[in-house]
Amino acid sequence: MRAGVLAAAAMLAACASAVAPEAGAQAQVRSLGEILEQSPASDWQLVDPENTLYMDLPAGRVIIELADEYTPGHAANIRALVRAGYFDGSFILRSQDNYVVQWGRDDGDTTPMGEGQAALPPEFDRPRRGVDITRLRDPDSYAREVGFAYGFPVASNGQRTWLTHCYGMVGAGRGDTADSGSGSSLYVVIGQAPRHLDRNITTVGRVLQGMELLSVMPRGTGALGFYETPEERTTITRVRLAADVPASERINLEALRTDSATFRDVIESRRFRRESWFLDPVGHVNLCNVPLPVRVRQ
Amino acid sequence: MRAGVLAAAAMLAACASAVAPEAGAQAQVRSLGEILEQSPASDWQLVDPENTLYMDLPAGRVIIELADEYTPGHAANIRALVRAGYFDGSFILRSQDNYVVQWGRDDGDTTPMGEGQAALPPEFDRPRRGVDITRLRDPDSYAREVGFAYGFPVASNGQRTWLTHCYGMVGAGRGDTADSGSGSSLYVVIGQAPRHLDRNITTVGRVLQGMELLSVMPRGTGALGFYETPEERTTITRVRLAADVPASERINLEALRTDSATFRDVIESRRFRRESWFLDPVGHVNLCNVPLPVRVRQ
Repeated sequence: MRAGVLAAAAMLAACASAVAPEAGAQAQVRSLGEILEQSPASDWQLVDPENTLYMDLPAGRVIIELADEYTPGHAANIRALVRAGYFDGSFILRSQDNYVVQWGRDDGDTTPMGEGQAALPPEFDRPRRGVDITRLRDPDSYAREVGFAYGFPVASNGQRTWLTHCYGMVGAGRGDTADSGSGSSLYVVIGQAPRHLDRNITTVGRVLQGMELLSVMPRGTGALGFYETPEERTTITRVRLAADVPASERINLEALRTDSATFRDVIESRRFRRESWFLDPVGHVNLCNVPLPVRVRQ
Repeated sequence: MRAGVLAAAAMLAACASAVAPEAGAQAQVRSLGEILEQSPASDWQLVDPENTLYMDLPAGRVIIELADEYTPGHAANIRALVRAGYFDGSFILRSQDNYVVQWGRDDGDTTPMGEGQAALPPEFDRPRRGVDITRLRDPDSYAREVGFAYGFPVASNGQRTWLTHCYGMVGAGRGDTADSGSGSSLYVVIGQAPRHLDRNITTVGRVLQGMELLSVMPRGTGALGFYETPEERTTITRVRLAADVPASERINLEALRTDSATFRDVIESRRFRRESWFLDPVGHVNLCNVPLPVRVRQ
């Protein structure tokens, strides 16, 4: 057959039908879509409006969740900056291929920060103790233990745990010193996970919706993907906290709990690919290849 | 300090100056840029014009290298299709966020294929024996052995070796059967490495230049990122083999040999981050985070 559109479509029929059970496989093999459809409501959790940012671009809305359990100081500071209107009229400053898109304001800019700070102590990691991590069993190139906690991808060395730089994760830019960032300039990962940034910078959250608006920003031609002229920049119309938006105007997103039985099934469905397209069921998965499902609460 | 442009720039000063050697570190710590600048010419290899595709889009040129050592049948078929003009006036069919951009023609299209075939036996892997792999020492989530061969990222299980789906790698779309692909529809990885596709599909090469033109294709709104209307598609002006272009019009790219001492230094420079920005030198690297340097031969 000519490998055109239909063949191409089949290539990624990742969420499509289950296949006949193999010898030794579970009798009930479910697709990712079926797993999610059949999940109990209790396995989903409304994303806290106090941790939810609506970032409006000319092309549409990006929704970001702040990782309050890992980086409470930065989450509080970002809330303060958002409430001061600091990001309204700020810019996409940079788009570096296979790396990050970053936004904020120029150095020397004097936009009022309200109660927000321009620099904060780092929150690169936190104690492992007390954190319930849904572990992945496959090896990881960077860390002894990887998995998920509070809805985010994380790693640990036994004593400390930290958020990991997977696709769609959001971090707070900093200068050369650990305490030079604050969340007043943010970046999002748009390529292969730059895990070497883990524990070197404060990762503050993840994009829940609208990632496709950020990932296609034309790459900047300056060093590190910075735009060289103001005309190349996209202006951020405004950023608000969902908590500050009238309830009737909110988009009530709920995320699959990463400590749920459904999420463990999601992981296994990505580890063993049972869809008919897969000739080799794989049997492995990387931390940054596990989807973190989000849906609008009905 | 306010984390604006300068702070942001520092965030990724990945190719910048070396730092003072630590106790136990090599006396001579070089940045990636220095490693490449100081490399002998013999560590670089001209990319074979018979394996080089010039794919011209309205926004510019994408240059792709075919992995002839791993997938000779597909490389030969793609050459034949290119020489038949099969891709001239074909389309970007699909752009799926954090996954792939795919191009080719619709099912049922009757554009002549010349000597090209519409379906080929798969080339998912090849014997490990006889392949000199520059190994990575860090663990990998998907394979027992990973590293580089003939300028490409590869994995192996001891008996067989295969090309891996890292960012910028190019593959041949297929239908549900192993022998339903041929390279008449191609895709490129634009997000986190979908390594579950390894050994499930024939990976045929990698983008050497112009990746930033493909990665920003607006995401399609149809299933799997397919464009829903013809107007959304970008037309591929033409595709030629470098070998068929007059020598004076060629872009003579050379790639750093992955079996060279310089490349081993590149790997170590990515494993241990000595730049002053890094507070934690990391000490690990993933297969898909090692750059494969390319430059224009002077």
